[in-house]
Amino acid sequence: MENALAKKPHVVIVGAGFGGLEAAKKLACAEVRVAVIDRTNYHLFQPLLYQVATAALSPADIAAPVRAILSKCRNMEVILAEVQSVDVDAKKVKMADGELGYDYLILATGARHSYFGHPEWEKLAPGLKSLEDAVEIRRRILMAFEYAEKISDEAARKAAMTFVIIGGGPTGVEMAGAIAEIARYTLAKDFRHIDPSQARIILVEGEPRVLAAFPEDLSASALKQLVDLGVEVRLGVHATDLTEAGLNIGDEFIPCRVKIWAAGNNASFVGKTLGVPADRVGRVLVNNDLTIPGHPEVQVLGDLANFLYQTGQPLPGVSAVAMQQGRHAARNILAMIEGRKPQRFWYWDRGSMATIGRNKAVADLNFVHFSGLPAWLAWLFVHIIFLVGFRNRVAVLFQWAWAYFSFNKGARLITRNFQAETRPPA
Amino acid sequence: MENALAKKPHVVIVGAGFGGLEAAKKLACAEVRVAVIDRTNYHLFQPLLYQVATAALSPADIAAPVRAILSKCRNMEVILAEVQSVDVDAKKVKMADGELGYDYLILATGARHSYFGHPEWEKLAPGLKSLEDAVEIRRRILMAFEYAEKISDEAARKAAMTFVIIGGGPTGVEMAGAIAEIARYTLAKDFRHIDPSQARIILVEGEPRVLAAFPEDLSASALKQLVDLGVEVRLGVHATDLTEAGLNIGDEFIPCRVKIWAAGNNASFVGKTLGVPADRVGRVLVNNDLTIPGHPEVQVLGDLANFLYQTGQPLPGVSAVAMQQGRHAARNILAMIEGRKPQRFWYWDRGSMATIGRNKAVADLNFVHFSGLPAWLAWLFVHIIFLVGFRNRVAVLFQWAWAYFSFNKGARLITRNFQAETRPPA
Repeated sequence: MENALAKKPHVVIVGAGFGGLEAAKKLACAEVRVAVIDRTNYHLFQPLLYQVATAALSPADIAAPVRAILSKCRNMEVILAEVQSVDVDAKKVKMADGELGYDYLILATGARHSYFGHPEWEKLAPGLKSLEDAVEIRRRILMAFEYAEKISDEAARKAAMTFVIIGGGPTGVEMAGAIAEIARYTLAKDFRHIDPSQARIILVEGEPRVLAAFPEDLSASALKQLVDLGVEVRLGVHATDLTEAGLNIGDEFIPCRVKIWAAGNNASFVGKTLGVPADRVGRVLVNNDLTIPGHPEVQVLGDLANFLYQTGQPLPGVSAVAMQQGRHAARNILAMIEGRKPQRFWYWDRGSMATIGRNKAVADLNFVHFSGLPAWLAWLFVHIIFLVGFRNRVAVLFQWAWAYFSFNKGARLITRNFQAETRPPA
Repeated sequence: MENALAKKPHVVIVGAGFGGLEAAKKLACAEVRVAVIDRTNYHLFQPLLYQVATAALSPADIAAPVRAILSKCRNMEVILAEVQSVDVDAKKVKMADGELGYDYLILATGARHSYFGHPEWEKLAPGLKSLEDAVEIRRRILMAFEYAEKISDEAARKAAMTFVIIGGGPTGVEMAGAIAEIARYTLAKDFRHIDPSQARIILVEGEPRVLAAFPEDLSASALKQLVDLGVEVRLGVHATDLTEAGLNIGDEFIPCRVKIWAAGNNASFVGKTLGVPADRVGRVLVNNDLTIPGHPEVQVLGDLANFLYQTGQPLPGVSAVAMQQGRHAARNILAMIEGRKPQRFWYWDRGSMATIGRNKAVADLNFVHFSGLPAWLAWLFVHIIFLVGFRNRVAVLFQWAWAYFSFNKGARLITRNFQAETRPPA
């Protein structure tokens, strides 16, 4: 590294999700030295993760190598490592294999799903945050049909063809809709001893409506669209007592092989190591300029931050918030370097959308709500525009077009340990 | 299943590779009942597996669900299971979870790589037969560069940037060329502490020339094209003493982190359970009509068969042989059902090709040999034509075009257990 570069202020960005990556792009080729640390080598387009889990897309379609995205400017370094803690007094982040000092820190390590005090449920009902999660869920869904095809016991077959999704937010709604479509259309003709279209897909939501963060009319529309797809929606009840054999929904025991968790998030453990106040789910209570109390050189954003100042409610854990905060944090750093103060952050809410299936979606653009085909087209348009990298955008568009016209999903592979599990000793 | 169907002769096909799948297609909607058994749920286009291992393609691009391929005809059943043995007297195949009787059997379970009596080398130098293998090799290659970027020890860094491919057949040549291209072009600008183009790629071949099954002029051309790409080719020496730290090539110890095995095959263990003579690598010695001695109802083909009758040499383990044998075996069964005898098999050799990199390949069309760009275009054309399924063909074409014009590889993901390995205890 050249000497001139070594003397510039050192910005460390932890996490290459939507927030961290936007901050890094804003600082590319600026008068700072930047290190981006992530525990994977790719930026993940999380809003489409459910499409990997439901065999419509391949992992590489929704992931782009962080190094390639940030390779242009020589002031930008990418480090593949997992940050374990931050020492705000020594101004250092600690990784498994070393530590790294910073002048300015942007912490954007996101969230994992939370099981409300039942960590043992994670194995029974995986959540959907990483590519590994998605491939594992895809494997479970496809294997359930394979298992049902093979066994003759009627009760076991029914349990294998029952899919329960716990949590009726956008991820739960998308998963329920996508599994219903696989069963009704994609797999319809592929089996000889079962009829996949008879699969039971149950969506459980503790609140009295699905998509509780959306306006009520769109919740009602999403419910209707789910029911049209044959999804059973159970509202105002909770899933409890998960076992291999099934789970309780309210007072009823449902025998069920595949359970998917979409019910709640906990912020990343790195937030706790800052030593500043956090909320119930571990989100750091940030100042109105995204800095943390007593440390203007540290900014926290995205799913790891609880930002209260605009509405009195924490901003939602969506990509738009993280991206705007990422750009804002980068601007704050450039301002501080020039001796100015960090500025207050304002979120510009352009609305939100959720998709349910082919031609089925809801969209809330604040000034107007819509449902069905127009919402679905809007969803499609926005997701293609935002997908990182030209290649992914065209590849995904192509696969969607193919899936749309053929009702076929392209990535129906059961991989991972399947071969290892079944290979007999040589 | 309808009663009429149940009374028809039952054909069991084990293995949905090139041979088994062709046989199944030929028997689709014929007057037989067919069960296709495979231990994966997809047909794999193995000739492009090295492109998954080198991050150019995604697993789903070269794999198509067997059920979807064979769903049209109701006489066709697909079973996801691993066959462990065949009882030729009882006419049954045995699986982990049951057995299945047959009237006619086509056994096409292929081959795995063989480590010449050193099974402990498999972990050190994975071979390339399955999607799991390919994703693991991709992970190792990409992680080697990540590791080299992080460490300061010069010797360890050099070892991390040394890649040894053992075996100079088509797979070894393709892997060596593809790794050289990744290092020289794809990753060239992505790191700050290493220069990926300085990576050392060594191809080891025990014979005095690479592509020993090709004509000598094409071996010489392939060697030149490899050297042009910066691959070190070591001929007439063997790799021995593999360890984590490196391996011996002839008398020289080469410190090296990533070793890839492309040196030899052993036929599937299922062949041994037939109780008929096999060759040194476990291939069943079949009659000239593909049946086995004493059991005309059992046919063995593809990489599992040693077919000697045409040239006195066993036919090579390539997809063209397997596909022609698959169609022939299906025709034999239909003949036997009508009371006729199985016919002698003749292989129509249309030539062979191997690719080395962008614009680099060799092609032997028997009457003419060519190299470089024309051979590469021919290779491209043939591989696109033969890829199973319309969707894969277009998707792969698109990704190749993108890679060609941008020098970028689309599937540079380090997945699998990477997160699990690095996550600290909560």
